[in-house]
Formats: sequence, C-alpha cells, structure tokens
Amino acid sequence: MARKTIYNVAVVGATGAVGQKIIKILEDKKFPVDKLKLLSSKRSAGKKVFFDNKEIIVEEATPDSFAEVDIALFSAGGSVSKKLAPEAVKHGTVVVDNTSAFRMDEDVPLVVPEVNETDLKLHNGIIANPNCSTIQMVAALKPIQQAFGLRRIIVSTYQAVSGSGLQACEELEKQTKQFMENQEMTAEILPVKGEQNHYPIAFNALPQIDVFQENGYTFEEMKMINETKKIMHAPELPVAATCVRLPFFKSHAESVYVEVDKEDIEVADLWRVLENADGIVLEDDPGTQTYPTPLSASDKEDVFVGRVRKDLDKPNGFHLWVVSDNLMKGAAWNTVQIAERLIKNNLL
Amino acid sequence: MARKTIYNVAVVGATGAVGQKIIKILEDKKFPVDKLKLLSSKRSAGKKVFFDNKEIIVEEATPDSFAEVDIALFSAGGSVSKKLAPEAVKHGTVVVDNTSAFRMDEDVPLVVPEVNETDLKLHNGIIANPNCSTIQMVAALKPIQQAFGLRRIIVSTYQAVSGSGLQACEELEKQTKQFMENQEMTAEILPVKGEQNHYPIAFNALPQIDVFQENGYTFEEMKMINETKKIMHAPELPVAATCVRLPFFKSHAESVYVEVDKEDIEVADLWRVLENADGIVLEDDPGTQTYPTPLSASDKEDVFVGRVRKDLDKPNGFHLWVVSDNLMKGAAWNTVQIAERLIKNNLL
Repeated sequence: MARKTIYNVAVVGATGAVGQKIIKILEDKKFPVDKLKLLSSKRSAGKKVFFDNKEIIVEEATPDSFAEVDIALFSAGGSVSKKLAPEAVKHGTVVVDNTSAFRMDEDVPLVVPEVNETDLKLHNGIIANPNCSTIQMVAALKPIQQAFGLRRIIVSTYQAVSGSGLQACEELEKQTKQFMENQEMTAEILPVKGEQNHYPIAFNALPQIDVFQENGYTFEEMKMINETKKIMHAPELPVAATCVRLPFFKSHAESVYVEVDKEDIEVADLWRVLENADGIVLEDDPGTQTYPTPLSASDKEDVFVGRVRKDLDKPNGFHLWVVSDNLMKGAAWNTVQIAERLIKNNLL
Repeated sequence: MARKTIYNVAVVGATGAVGQKIIKILEDKKFPVDKLKLLSSKRSAGKKVFFDNKEIIVEEATPDSFAEVDIALFSAGGSVSKKLAPEAVKHGTVVVDNTSAFRMDEDVPLVVPEVNETDLKLHNGIIANPNCSTIQMVAALKPIQQAFGLRRIIVSTYQAVSGSGLQACEELEKQTKQFMENQEMTAEILPVKGEQNHYPIAFNALPQIDVFQENGYTFEEMKMINETKKIMHAPELPVAATCVRLPFFKSHAESVYVEVDKEDIEVADLWRVLENADGIVLEDDPGTQTYPTPLSASDKEDVFVGRVRKDLDKPNGFHLWVVSDNLMKGAAWNTVQIAERLIKNNLL
C-alpha cells in the first residue's frame, strides 16, 4: 500500500485560544491536510472558521467524530481528553494531546521534538504535549545536557496570564482598567478558576499557578519537576520549581539555575551549544542590553535565551533567562511539530 | 552633660518618593524631632511640606546645611551623598545614607536592624541603608541563619517599578494607557534612565535592573550578592541573584532558595523561627491559598514570607517567597529604624 501524503486532521477544542493557534499554524506551515475536522463542546458547535479560504463549521466532539481521522490534535481540557482520546484511538486515529491527562502515563510519550523526538516511536496512539513552562525550559537545557551533562535545575518562572486561558486575559484587562480608573479591582478567575479565593493579577504577582498539592508545591510546579525528568530521560535529576503568575498577556520567562557535570566550562561554551541548537535563539549581549523579554518573544515559535552567567561561587553553576511564547512553542507549535514529526518518521 | 531626648533632623531629598515616605514615618512613629530641616536640589527648593501640622519650606542642600543637625537621612542619589555626607559629618552630624555611595566602604556599617544592629556601634559618622531587594531577603534569612546555619542562597527577584523612582512609575502608567488604547508603547526611562536602550515595562518583564558589570551581572544583582555577605557577616557565603523588573508599582517579591547546615529540619522548623522573628510576618497556608503578594504587602512595614517548601531532592534545601514594600522596609522605614536604634543605643 502506498504511504499517504495527505491526512485527515481533527482539532479538538477548535474555538479555544490554543485551538485557534493550531489551526493558524496548520495553515501557515502548509501541513498536508486532506480534510480538516473542527471539533468543540456542544456550546461552541456551529461556529464557522476559515481554513485555506474555505469555511468550516465547528462540530460537537463525540466518540464517533474520529472515523476516518488520521490525526487528532486535542486542546480542550483534561476531562475531554480523558473521555475522547481513547475513543479516537479506537478508530485508529493518532492523538496529540495538549492537556495534562496522559503526560505521566508510562506508555504515553511526552515529547518536545528538539529534545526527545525518538520517543515518538514508542507511542500507542496517544502522544502528550508537555506543559508550556516545561517545554521552553527543556528545549533550552537539552543542548547543555548533551554537551556538558546536567546535575541539577532550579527554576523560578514569570508566567503570562494566557496560560490560564482567555478568561484570565480578560480579567487582566478588566482589572487594569479598574485600577487606572481608581476603582477597586474585582477578581473572579485567577489564580485558579475553580478555587475558593481569587486575587487581582493586575499590577501584582501571584505565587500560585494551578492547585496546591499535598507537599506544598503547586500542580504547575510538580508538572515542571516531573515532566522535565521524563522528557530528559533523567529520573534522578534534581529539579526544583517556583511558579509565579504575572500581569502580562503572552510568553513565559524563566530564571533558570543549572549545574553541569563539567567544571571547566565558561559562558562562551554555553553560548556555542545554544547558538547551534535547534529551535533556540541566543539573545545575549550585556554590552548592547540584548536579552529576550515576554514582549519581544511573543508570536514567535522559537525559545529565546539570554543573560547566561557563570555562578560566582560554583564552578559548574550557570544562570540563564529563557523566554518563549506559551501559546506557540509552549502549546500550539509544539503540538503541530509533533504531528509533523509523526509523519516524517512514518508513525501515523 | 545630660543626654539629648529630642533631635535636630535633616531629610536630604525631601521631595523624592523615599524622602516623602521618610517624613511621613517620622511623623507616624513620633520620632523625637526638635527641628526638622528639609533639604533638596536647587530645583525643588522652595516647596512647602507639612510636618506635625506645621509648614516647612524645603531648602537647597549645601555643605553648610548641617550646622546643628544631629542626624541627617540622605535619599537624594549617590552623587549628592558622596558630596554632602562627608560635609555633614564634619559638622558632627550622623548620616544615615539610603544610596549605594558608601555601602561597601569598610568603615561604614551597612545595617538592617533586625539583622546586625550591633554594627551600628562601629560607625564613623555614616551608616548605610542597604539596597531594597537586599534588605527584605536578609531580614527573612537571618532567623534561618541563626537557627540552622546558611550554606548558600540563590534568589530570583520580582521587582516593582518604584525602585527606579517616580519617573518609572509614571512610565508604567503611561505605557499601560497606551497599550489599552492600542497605541504603540513609548519607552524612555526603563530599564535604566541613562542607558542607550529603553524597553516597555507595561505587560512585560525586563531582566535588567541597573547597569551591567564586567562579569555579565547587573549592578543590582551584585548589590544583592555583596551586601548580603556584608550584612550577614558571611564573606564566604555563596549568593547568586537574578533581578527582574516587573509591571507593578509597589513591593518587591523574591523567590529564594537556601541551603542550611542542618539536614534534619522540616518546613515546620522554618515556620517556627520565622513566626518568632522580629519584623517578619509568616503568611503561609496552601490549604487556604495564603501567601503574600506585592499588593497585599504594599504600604506595610514588615517583611512577609510564604510558600515555604522543602526541596524535593536536597534534604537541607528550602524555597521561600519573600515580599515587602520596597519604599517602606526596603528604604524609608529601614532608614528611620536605623535612626531610632542609633538613639536607643546612644550612638548619636
């Protein structure tokens, strides 16, 4: 049988922030789409979306939506993925899932193509897309791990509100207006929609992303810790994370401390491996005040690294500043990239 | 001679953000003021300020301004301090200086009263007030150092624009308006007023506070590193810092990682010493989403600590979230506190 060259693709969560980005990237990257099926909740079904100058009507996602679908890109929340991804797999569809539903499952590869593309071969129908803050960090650290080994990671994050969805963006906008008009700010969404307490994010910083776990860490922090170990194939690697939500709309930044195995390397050695790494753009020149920021990284697909410094006490310690658009490389772009690599590696 | 019980006080930089706070705190705390002299640049001289219901006319600061002044609180920039503080000392005035001019001088004590009050005894006319981001960190870490020993510190900061002065606050406000009205944001002040390049701070994060040093660290980062060692009397203590400016007006937050000497302590042990520490308020209960934020700490004089977690790999590692108003404990309140302690210890 001749191998397919164009594919039936479904996007689940087609009307959400990430779903919309996915559709745009499929178009921009000329992904080899035969038929595109756009799926959503019952509430959003019926909406019209343009793809390649054709109008597509969004349909309600049901277990039967996946007949004839080669690949489905899920981005509609964990409960939808848990319910519908196994149904899609029953139809022979390969699922790339952008939620946390299957990420830590042993038989589900968790993939950042620049880091662990070969894990795709092990898939059983579902491939998980990692958490946004994890993706950009492992993308920046993989070339360092390969060249010099990694002994530990300590990260403090600076995360955009779009990581909490469209409603969180609207909340930042609303509170900003309230503040500028000297009104009291009202908080209903952040830090976590379903939680008891809500605090203003405008002109503030919230050291809580997702719910608290038994051990005092938030789920976002534990995602960074556990997913990093899985993606980097380093179950024993010490990883620590503190995750903070901040009042900007797009792109996460991260202050990352790493210890490498080698003690005789310098900033220039890190620059060299980062400059040559896939998907990484080095923006690092103190002399010209060159470093990435959330605004400068927004709407771009790469991971930007700057402020590379050697620790002043630990000869094998380095500090980095890593910035990337959380909806692009952190979500939609990495999802489409996985789909591209599945095709390239004949794994559909 | 009977010891004085009221003092002639001068505030240098009386019309600035910190100067104004100092005047208000002197009033609120009923500092034993005999005569209050308000000094400024020529440009601001002539302005009128109310203190204890009396109008005081701001005068231009000159070398002769300090005759009969017992204590002068300087907050008018490093160059003013370098020029006028030695002149004040010649008049027998004791200077508390809130700039970086003398902080690292060997014969100038650098003091956070809760941490190293006894260093005040060594003064030769000038006492330096540390950098805002340093003060709140050492205040939080001192009780931990005392109880368990300290082996290393790694901090990533989340700093308010007011640390860059009134113009930076106005810039954040202006850019916020521009962004909300879909205009291009114009940047003229941040990250550093005198530097070549300026970047928007509204809805952004800037990983540069103060100018870059030869070693790739910013001056703000080196201040945190060097001042911490001096204040804590720990010249060999490894300290690493990454300093980031963020779009909020007041209070700095810090994600602090520490390693202590003891390996058998738990979060509850840290809670206990922090709860009993002078000037520290523990706000740490994941179960009720209790943690400090820049907004919750603003206009308060204490240092707030939350999110205390044990590192998941290092048995002697802990993570903390430290928040304090950078103009209060980080500047004006610590300055007035030093003045109070000078009196209490009979050191004027």
